[in-house]
Amino acid sequence: MLSTDRFFDPDVSRKSAAIELYALIKDLPIISPHGHVDPGLFSDPGSRFGNPIELLVQPDHYLLRMLYSQGVPLEDLMQKEDPRRVWQVFAGHFHLYRGTPSGLWFTHTLEMHFGITEKLNAASAERIYDQIEAALAAPEFTPRNLFERMNIELLATTDPVVGALEHHQAIRASGWSGRVIPTFRADDMINMLAPNWLNNVQLLSAASGIDVGDYRSYLAALEQRRAFFKSLGATATDTSIYLPETACLSPLEAETIFQRALKGQASPDDAARFCAHMLVEMARMSVEDGLVMQLHAGVYRNHNPEVFKRFGPDMGFDIPVQAEYTLNLKPLLDRFGDHTNFTLILFTLDETLYARELAPLAGAYPSLRLGPPWWFYDSWNGMSRYFDQVMETAGLYNTVGFNDDTRAFLAIPARHDVWRRAAANWLAGLLVRRLIDRQDAEQMAVELAVGLAKRAYRLEP
Amino acid sequence: MLSTDRFFDPDVSRKSAAIELYALIKDLPIISPHGHVDPGLFSDPGSRFGNPIELLVQPDHYLLRMLYSQGVPLEDLMQKEDPRRVWQVFAGHFHLYRGTPSGLWFTHTLEMHFGITEKLNAASAERIYDQIEAALAAPEFTPRNLFERMNIELLATTDPVVGALEHHQAIRASGWSGRVIPTFRADDMINMLAPNWLNNVQLLSAASGIDVGDYRSYLAALEQRRAFFKSLGATATDTSIYLPETACLSPLEAETIFQRALKGQASPDDAARFCAHMLVEMARMSVEDGLVMQLHAGVYRNHNPEVFKRFGPDMGFDIPVQAEYTLNLKPLLDRFGDHTNFTLILFTLDETLYARELAPLAGAYPSLRLGPPWWFYDSWNGMSRYFDQVMETAGLYNTVGFNDDTRAFLAIPARHDVWRRAAANWLAGLLVRRLIDRQDAEQMAVELAVGLAKRAYRLEP
Amino acid sequence: MLSTDRFFDPDVSRKSAAIELYALIKDLPIISPHGHVDPGLFSDPGSRFGNPIELLVQPDHYLLRMLYSQGVPLEDLMQKEDPRRVWQVFAGHFHLYRGTPSGLWFTHTLEMHFGITEKLNAASAERIYDQIEAALAAPEFTPRNLFERMNIELLATTDPVVGALEHHQAIRASGWSGRVIPTFRADDMINMLAPNWLNNVQLLSAASGIDVGDYRSYLAALEQRRAFFKSLGATATDTSIYLPETACLSPLEAETIFQRALKGQASPDDAARFCAHMLVEMARMSVEDGLVMQLHAGVYRNHNPEVFKRFGPDMGFDIPVQAEYTLNLKPLLDRFGDHTNFTLILFTLDETLYARELAPLAGAYPSLRLGPPWWFYDSWNGMSRYFDQVMETAGLYNTVGFNDDTRAFLAIPARHDVWRRAAANWLAGLLVRRLIDRQDAEQMAVELAVGLAKRAYRLEP
Repeated sequence: MLSTDRFFDPDVSRKSAAIELYALIKDLPIISPHGHVDPGLFSDPGSRFGNPIELLVQPDHYLLRMLYSQGVPLEDLMQKEDPRRVWQVFAGHFHLYRGTPSGLWFTHTLEMHFGITEKLNAASAERIYDQIEAALAAPEFTPRNLFERMNIELLATTDPVVGALEHHQAIRASGWSGRVIPTFRADDMINMLAPNWLNNVQLLSAASGIDVGDYRSYLAALEQRRAFFKSLGATATDTSIYLPETACLSPLEAETIFQRALKGQASPDDAARFCAHMLVEMARMSVEDGLVMQLHAGVYRNHNPEVFKRFGPDMGFDIPVQAEYTLNLKPLLDRFGDHTNFTLILFTLDETLYARELAPLAGAYPSLRLGPPWWFYDSWNGMSRYFDQVMETAGLYNTVGFNDDTRAFLAIPARHDVWRRAAANWLAGLLVRRLIDRQDAEQMAVELAVGLAKRAYRLEP
Repeated sequence: MLSTDRFFDPDVSRKSAAIELYALIKDLPIISPHGHVDPGLFSDPGSRFGNPIELLVQPDHYLLRMLYSQGVPLEDLMQKEDPRRVWQVFAGHFHLYRGTPSGLWFTHTLEMHFGITEKLNAASAERIYDQIEAALAAPEFTPRNLFERMNIELLATTDPVVGALEHHQAIRASGWSGRVIPTFRADDMINMLAPNWLNNVQLLSAASGIDVGDYRSYLAALEQRRAFFKSLGATATDTSIYLPETACLSPLEAETIFQRALKGQASPDDAARFCAHMLVEMARMSVEDGLVMQLHAGVYRNHNPEVFKRFGPDMGFDIPVQAEYTLNLKPLLDRFGDHTNFTLILFTLDETLYARELAPLAGAYPSLRLGPPWWFYDSWNGMSRYFDQVMETAGLYNTVGFNDDTRAFLAIPARHDVWRRAAANWLAGLLVRRLIDRQDAEQMAVELAVGLAKRAYRLEP
Repeated sequence: MLSTDRFFDPDVSRKSAAIELYALIKDLPIISPHGHVDPGLFSDPGSRFGNPIELLVQPDHYLLRMLYSQGVPLEDLMQKEDPRRVWQVFAGHFHLYRGTPSGLWFTHTLEMHFGITEKLNAASAERIYDQIEAALAAPEFTPRNLFERMNIELLATTDPVVGALEHHQAIRASGWSGRVIPTFRADDMINMLAPNWLNNVQLLSAASGIDVGDYRSYLAALEQRRAFFKSLGATATDTSIYLPETACLSPLEAETIFQRALKGQASPDDAARFCAHMLVEMARMSVEDGLVMQLHAGVYRNHNPEVFKRFGPDMGFDIPVQAEYTLNLKPLLDRFGDHTNFTLILFTLDETLYARELAPLAGAYPSLRLGPPWWFYDSWNGMSRYFDQVMETAGLYNTVGFNDDTRAFLAIPARHDVWRRAAANWLAGLLVRRLIDRQDAEQMAVELAVGLAKRAYRLEP
């Protein structure tokens, strides 16, 4: 059974301060401004979850990679025929998650949604499967009901530029009160090396109603799509790139590269320069339309070609690489860094950037904000390092609260709970060392739980 | 009101050990071997401070950048007409500094020098301004009196190579007992890409009385200036460079580049090679004249061109970049690394160098010492990371105590106090874990507060 | 006198949990799967240690470098004439090791093996020297007796590819029960820039009985040597390289470079490409013969040319450099990363790789395991950072327990003791924060002490 004071520092004075601060924020509504939940879960009031494996294991690359790293064949985990057999394999290896965020989220999720307090292992596997299966069959166990029970005030999804956003339209049309909004994700449109880029451009023409035959119409089509996303509630864009290089090309050079790309003749260098340029163009569009810009950089996608070939992306083989922001962002910041109506939220998988580059940048440029610890660092220690290395220089108010960034809808409360506990524990550390007073601590706690996210993502009406 | 046991770890046993160790060192005199206080404050016994804004806010780029990062226009902060209006803006945003070193130093400074214990915010702003203004008007509130009241034993300033050091001369001539010494800062003389480098060379000719027409006379003129600085008490040089590359050019190549530069024809590569070479020459001069060499590297100056254009340097837009010492310093160390009469103190804004490069280097070469946590890392967490990552490998005795590195004269005690508390807290952690005994801890505490700095900077008579 | 609860976190609840967990593992046998002890110590039952200086100081580059860094001439330390004089110098500077792992290991070693509880300094130096000398003269103070008294279950040495392993043969032939096994170390054979590489190849021919005249016979000879090492108990290879680049050359290109090298005409680029290729070949051989592959990267050897010239290697001047694994290992992992019968253990001196690259890689590829904190990081803080930065993402079971990696036979228990205390302290932190339960903690503690090392290095029969 989950201890109510789990995670907190064991020192008596700090722990008691943390418990008090946590009590102030634990029941505040959840703001989830960046994530990957399928909006289709909510478009149909009657939609249901799949079986326990489809729901809890197979979509979770954190879980899969760990099993694979210990020699469990992915075929045994991804098969559809016998979910109970997959569950047995998973449960028999659950000790692998000891002390990991995956293990802690999973345990939290089992207890919170299914009332399971027994430890998961080979012996308890069948019993626990039965419990989950029974809960899933209950009439009230629908995505919309859970959305409300989980006290989610806002959920942002991530959506392709050319998507029709039909689920978002359906959600709005249904009159349901849940607030689910799209996020504009243009990676595959600005990266000319993306598979099927030419096809993506055709889809962009179709989606926007603008015939994309040159660079100018390409920009116009992107702007049209941004406006469409905004009309369905979007407040932000997101871009994930390998390296965060930015550059300002002349319109002529941009057009020349674009024309080569349309003929399938863009070189890797063309593609890199164009992508760097498009980050500045995306910033320019954000200055104009007010959509918050998010930039996720520094990850080598699909590092394992064999696994990619057999199972596709998102199987746990996205591996971080070293990154750099001070020099790379300069062209973009030279143009838009001082705009107070522009917000650019930066994320990193290279923690050496926290204190060296990101905190000094975010602590100086009015347009910059620093996103929360991302991906592998969405963990107790990752959060502790973030608070330790970022806050003294960036200042709390140049950060944006928490992103759960998850596909796993049921795990959202577990993730926000870790963040809120980490925030309370950090503030308790400042408080008992007399670096802030109680009023400061309480206000900062509420900011970390909801306030910073709402303001940074412009979610207030 | 400042708590007497602020900062210390809350664990009862560690805190009580920290309090005891801190008590041993808190009242020791302040040694400030590296900083940026204006020596003109002390040359005239009757000199006075300006108004509260001129004294406390406008010269402090830590404070300015944070306000600017949150959208406060720099024009509103830098105006001279209405200091009370600036103060009101500042106070209304003082929550931005919660948990930051800037906030903690400021609060400490207000209480220590002005007796202000009220929290600064929009409501208290006017009252507090009045209190500061009244204190500044008091006859005893002079720089010299404060120097003595603050128990400063030595204050080193930073001075341009070509300066006449007239304030230092005046201080000496006045018979005042305060010890204020210059530091030889040659950045703009060895970096051929510095604005007005040719003019700097002319000034060097004038200052040294040596007509600098070639590389040989350039070296002679620098040596003359070093001797002049030494005659006024200097014990150290300082150089701030973008990347710490070092190289040994042949005299012919050095001369060739120098001649190109005199004609305004030096390429960026010329400049980089010459600068790398001059670091080795500066080391050679230190071997000869005994001045301690300091090297600060890894910062991109004036990252924001718009702010630089409108407000000049030192406005909070100096942003760290990744750095490297193991390979870059090798040419210099190959020549002078084993000299026991040479001291080279290294600083970094890239903390990844602490454990990987700087501690192993300082823990092996007799000439090397590791400077304290610099700039953004002159903070409680920055110091904790420094102790954690440096001391096991470098050993305490290859470090140099503390530098306050500040322009803000009144904040010097606050900065040394944080260091002394951090040192006591670190040693308390070793002591309660039985890794050192009490005798060790007490001797190490005194070293960290004053002993290491005095020896490293050769401040003992 | 060593405190029984030294090192542990002072918080009462955490410390008491740590003491309980440590009690479970402190007396477990020592598994030392990677180190540099001379196997000759054990081949002759009557072998004895040298004098205290030869035994404790002169072979320990951790100790030497620190003295040298503070200006003690190496000549004074390395002389053979007057060991008592060396001891006096060493003892007079023993305060330099305050708070360092070297100091803690040394103190532990003195107390454990010689019953010395007095503090070492100039005043106690002679008395302590006498005590050590007397103990060394005692009949029972032999390497074999100590091996047993220290409860070493297995000790792996590091041995050159072309060695006859005569000591290992003698140990086996002697019928002694101690398990001492060789490790296959091929650095100087795959690095064509190694001094005397051509001579090494001739030695390889002689040792293998295969005339190495081309790339094919070179591979065959290496395979022969691996088989020979295996026949004497080896379960692993080790390679130390400057940068962990890997590459797959065509057989033709490999042969071409090899032929150039045989003529003494290989370029630095040839050598780098060949070495990168040979890492993949070594992986291929491991897949075939089952020897575990170890890779130590990122250190600039013999950084100080003057010290190298006068005293040779291993004098404390091996300095880390920045490293990269995500991109560099890809060619090797593309070929063998998914093999479940292949184990590749990675080590780093660049801690920024822990969370960014190594933990994500080891947490995904079935072949990869992450080695313990290495060299400068074999310390209390180094271990804390390792647990903090690695375990959440890699998971405990993708790590391999501890390596003492030492030449200092007598210090082996001290080093394992620090690791076991660090492990207990880390687990206690998880336990009191309710992130794992007691059963988890106890099983994880035993894994960290012995289980992980036995499995990763395939030491079970």
